[in-house]
Amino acid sequence: MIKAYAAMAPGAKFEAFEYDPGPLGKDEVELDVESCGICHSDLSMLDNDWGFTQYPFVPGHEVIGIVNSVGSDVTQIKVGQRVGLGWHSGYCNTCHTCQSGDHNLCASAQPTIGGRHGGFADKVRAQANSVVELPKGVKPDSAGPLFCGGITVFNPLVQFDVKPTSKVAVIGIGGLGHIALQFLNAWGCEVTAFTSSESKKAEALKMGAHHTLNSNNASELEAAAGRFDFIISTVNVKLDWNAYVGTLAPKGRLHFVGATLEPLNIGVFPLIMGQRSVSGSPVGSPATIKKMLDFTALHNIEPVTEYFSFAQVNEAIDKLRQGKAHYRIVLKD
Amino acid sequence: MIKAYAAMAPGAKFEAFEYDPGPLGKDEVELDVESCGICHSDLSMLDNDWGFTQYPFVPGHEVIGIVNSVGSDVTQIKVGQRVGLGWHSGYCNTCHTCQSGDHNLCASAQPTIGGRHGGFADKVRAQANSVVELPKGVKPDSAGPLFCGGITVFNPLVQFDVKPTSKVAVIGIGGLGHIALQFLNAWGCEVTAFTSSESKKAEALKMGAHHTLNSNNASELEAAAGRFDFIISTVNVKLDWNAYVGTLAPKGRLHFVGATLEPLNIGVFPLIMGQRSVSGSPVGSPATIKKMLDFTALHNIEPVTEYFSFAQVNEAIDKLRQGKAHYRIVLKD
Repeated sequence: MIKAYAAMAPGAKFEAFEYDPGPLGKDEVELDVESCGICHSDLSMLDNDWGFTQYPFVPGHEVIGIVNSVGSDVTQIKVGQRVGLGWHSGYCNTCHTCQSGDHNLCASAQPTIGGRHGGFADKVRAQANSVVELPKGVKPDSAGPLFCGGITVFNPLVQFDVKPTSKVAVIGIGGLGHIALQFLNAWGCEVTAFTSSESKKAEALKMGAHHTLNSNNASELEAAAGRFDFIISTVNVKLDWNAYVGTLAPKGRLHFVGATLEPLNIGVFPLIMGQRSVSGSPVGSPATIKKMLDFTALHNIEPVTEYFSFAQVNEAIDKLRQGKAHYRIVLKD
Repeated sequence: MIKAYAAMAPGAKFEAFEYDPGPLGKDEVELDVESCGICHSDLSMLDNDWGFTQYPFVPGHEVIGIVNSVGSDVTQIKVGQRVGLGWHSGYCNTCHTCQSGDHNLCASAQPTIGGRHGGFADKVRAQANSVVELPKGVKPDSAGPLFCGGITVFNPLVQFDVKPTSKVAVIGIGGLGHIALQFLNAWGCEVTAFTSSESKKAEALKMGAHHTLNSNNASELEAAAGRFDFIISTVNVKLDWNAYVGTLAPKGRLHFVGATLEPLNIGVFPLIMGQRSVSGSPVGSPATIKKMLDFTALHNIEPVTEYFSFAQVNEAIDKLRQGKAHYRIVLKD
């Protein structure tokens, strides 16, 4: 039996919950969970914001653990290895998208916390292909958030071939944005943090921003016209996107990883005149996660985390719900 | 004196108009105009739709002509050469954008029909850097439309590195779209034409489309879910853009060259889940125009044109205004 924490209904408190995972699949591995980050999407799923949550609901998709058993067909992962598990717990591995290395875009990819139980538990299972070994040099305790929050902001740098000579900016200096600043700084870019908070301004500079820009100040935004080659938005609220498009250089890209629910309402002329793009992306493939981990180790990048024990899960999720996480919460006994 | 046709007020009929161009600039060339295409943007400028038209207004930015004189600093263009002149008549040549080869995105680029007089005339002048020699193999009479309509649909294939193995689609089979079909077919792509007109369906197939898709038929659009790597929209009306985003494959791009005035109103989730992009671009740089002309000659690509004499300019513009051009109108004596 796996001992987990589950919510029995939308928005409910977590309670102890045991389930029998059945026999281990031939292509699966089972992890002894060491730690598990809490991501904003755990909260969205808890509340059934996206309409596909199944209850009992066991969140947790930023898992670090030790492999305790492997299925009969698994050769690439060994018992005793320390691995991480993120948003996806499996892929079809056979479609054109998977064959192209884009497993993260596979239409049949299995969300770790959708239709299966996640990492708020003592054990968790996943397809061996979906877990990635933690390299030496990445601290295990704070590594969980890399597997969803981290890869979400790292992946577009690879996918869209962001150059070290690029001028880049980050919208939203929170759970995702503070990791983005670190990655972009190590990537070689000139990094600007858009923030309206005076306290975050200092922290952003410490985490890798070379400049900050007050996004509530229209004249600061106007003065930045045509400046950025790449802007990544990590927020899930509606902003004046056309103002941000105006800060893009010719050929610039405004990229969304924050799941803003309202349509973008973007003018076509500014896209045409400056050959600009607007785009989005989800988490990354296992191959890109591996690249991220190596880059993280080389550059001593680390999510800023607060720790709660698994038994404190309800306190932890309340803190996240109140927007008080600083910057990322990890459950760890 | 240069003998031209000018409109004296928004939407006015063209009348004979002479002007003195003054001494030829050191970096300029003067062309004896042989022919000049009419583009939808000539009409938009005539009507002052974009708010920056100056009257008397001489349209014409799809010019083919013979160089009759060159300024004292001009070395790359010779008297007697046959060249084409498009949307831009000059660039600053010194900004970062020009230095990067992206003259078409130069903030100081001079529109041929904005603040100067265009090619509805016996002569026209331009910066030598902005005209491109017509290679052998490109028919002069029908080449004018390549210099605005043609380059507008060719440029994104170069800029966004569209692959010959891509599945592509064209929205709007008109003055731009019918050239896009020819380019994309020669590019090696599997080409679909979105069209709601039965008569255009047959023509689209003749011009290079492998398939047509009735964009008024919701079930045909749904059946095409996830199909296209690249869609180019040449229309300037509002369509159900989210339905088109739905037909994009993972990593697909919906690209605008048609200046739709209404905001796009695009959902973020479909961009994120499929790593999709939405973008726009204007005409191309002189270097890209040169690439286009060589490609056009190699593949016997030719805009489908109707001819009017320069004296018939008012008839010609009326036909364009009524949407009856088939597919591109050229003035030629």
